[in-house]
Amino acid sequence: MNESTIINLFRKAFGRPFPGLVQGIGDDCAVFRSGGRNWLVTTDALVEGVHFRLETNPPYSLGKKCLAVNLSDIAAMGGIPRYAFLNLGLPTPVPRGFLSPFIKGLKEEVEKFSVALAGGDTHQSPRGISIGLTVIGEAAGNIAYRSGAKVGDRLYVSGYLGQSAAGFRLLTQFQKKPAPSRPRRFRELLKAHQEPEPQVALGQFLVRQRLVRAMIDLSDGLASDLRHICRASGVGALLDADLIPLSPALKAAADLLETSPLQLALTGGEDYQLLFSVPKDLVKIMETRVVKQVNRPVYPIGEIIPGQKIFIKSSTKVRILKETGFDHFSPVEGKGA
Amino acid sequence: MNESTIINLFRKAFGRPFPGLVQGIGDDCAVFRSGGRNWLVTTDALVEGVHFRLETNPPYSLGKKCLAVNLSDIAAMGGIPRYAFLNLGLPTPVPRGFLSPFIKGLKEEVEKFSVALAGGDTHQSPRGISIGLTVIGEAAGNIAYRSGAKVGDRLYVSGYLGQSAAGFRLLTQFQKKPAPSRPRRFRELLKAHQEPEPQVALGQFLVRQRLVRAMIDLSDGLASDLRHICRASGVGALLDADLIPLSPALKAAADLLETSPLQLALTGGEDYQLLFSVPKDLVKIMETRVVKQVNRPVYPIGEIIPGQKIFIKSSTKVRILKETGFDHFSPVEGKGA
Repeated sequence: MNESTIINLFRKAFGRPFPGLVQGIGDDCAVFRSGGRNWLVTTDALVEGVHFRLETNPPYSLGKKCLAVNLSDIAAMGGIPRYAFLNLGLPTPVPRGFLSPFIKGLKEEVEKFSVALAGGDTHQSPRGISIGLTVIGEAAGNIAYRSGAKVGDRLYVSGYLGQSAAGFRLLTQFQKKPAPSRPRRFRELLKAHQEPEPQVALGQFLVRQRLVRAMIDLSDGLASDLRHICRASGVGALLDADLIPLSPALKAAADLLETSPLQLALTGGEDYQLLFSVPKDLVKIMETRVVKQVNRPVYPIGEIIPGQKIFIKSSTKVRILKETGFDHFSPVEGKGA
Repeated sequence: MNESTIINLFRKAFGRPFPGLVQGIGDDCAVFRSGGRNWLVTTDALVEGVHFRLETNPPYSLGKKCLAVNLSDIAAMGGIPRYAFLNLGLPTPVPRGFLSPFIKGLKEEVEKFSVALAGGDTHQSPRGISIGLTVIGEAAGNIAYRSGAKVGDRLYVSGYLGQSAAGFRLLTQFQKKPAPSRPRRFRELLKAHQEPEPQVALGQFLVRQRLVRAMIDLSDGLASDLRHICRASGVGALLDADLIPLSPALKAAADLLETSPLQLALTGGEDYQLLFSVPKDLVKIMETRVVKQVNRPVYPIGEIIPGQKIFIKSSTKVRILKETGFDHFSPVEGKGA
């Protein structure tokens, strides 16, 4: 029984309409209305041994990251994060040197994004640290759901992909053999894994300016998260492999790790960049305004097409993209996807 | 490092005022304002091996209980619960026979209290089931904080105490030796532990009718939770041991368990009854209206007094009440509390 089977069980049991509830289970956030405003709610957990190990995610960065991954969900709906609630499970005795840097990291992150840590709960967790975080935010404009994509829309991502996965693998590898030590050129990859930057300002901007149709944050990986948009919107997609933004650091790391940078970008996960679809005729305006007003690049990576399949083309061929990445042996005509 | 030390660390780091935030860390719920309404948020976790074992809390009742303990926090502020968010950690493979009854119990409870399960997250939890739940509710009137108690107020509880603790001990004992089996007369105790009834209607009623000054739900036990009210309000309390409501079933169980029913009532915890203070001149009105309109009894158990200490009197003596229960050997003059 995998995660999506479980989520479907819950959706079936609890998916009914409810007064005031605009969006229930099934998007980055739930949405409810109050006094003319739309409120967004998201919850996510980081569990030791499952989502992190203290050797690769030290307490300070963990404090930042546990908030960041939730802010990323708020960003994906174009929301303004407001209040955070922490459900913290700790072993007894509390691991020495954990709480103080963890609180410091969390405090810096809530202050950076003007969020209030407004409540929570601590409890014993005998086998390891468990961090549940719930964030409530306010919609900054028309909410961008996963289901809004239309055929012809252009697909964009907000930054380099595969960074976090490469960083994680380097951290793991360095632990085994500290060999060439941690060269400076990989620092951005380690940071992408340990202290991801949620794209809160960009998400709000796109929504406020009505420049986006569908949006999601890249937590599972492009191949998997794009599928969520396609399923919810009832469309397919065509990606251009040559356009997917890969950093020089990623390419160097992939060399060292003996893997493909594109594979890391497609399936690595945890990048917490935004993936969004833009109506074709707004593409130019969007690109110009984002550079000018949010002061960051965005990268076109493909387009929304009819059908249900996701393809990825390179200069030489078109292949079907699966959740596990592209399949070297499945021809376009196959029934793979 | 115990729970209250940890909570104080967080309160110190995150206790600053924040626009829109009416109440942060430190009460049963956080409170924020939106469009003229006050919203309440609470979060609580049930962790296998810490808060429950499947042998004593089977999946169906666990589904009910994980919502109930959060609804109880909403009740303690006089709120109307609206939306719930589930953070569910499951071992791999998912324990056989867990999900379906768990969902059934949760579904019955959300329907009973007209709550929407609006979102959540599932993740791997290798060492056991972990259930984090966050509930958002709406204030039904002037919120009853822990800090509202005034000298002279009368203290009330909403039902029998010690029931859950006795039920838990019986369940554990029955497991070891199924000896006299589970007699019918203990059924209410087992049910109090497995499927506690949050006092949502009563909390709302007291707040709407302005019949309450301070309120808290009894999750840790009367001795401990009354202390929260006294500290937050800067007052002391005097309990009357003979007034604390003890059921015949509790007394019979305490006999069997060779313990004191009063001790179970004071320190057992998990009763999820409400403890509240009522202005002296409203006591009669409150009692009459509650019986008539909420159709349930409430029990006076003592009063708010000046100072910081909590005393408990019986027909023969007055003793200091500690968080662990009353101390048989500490005289009133002692500096125990």
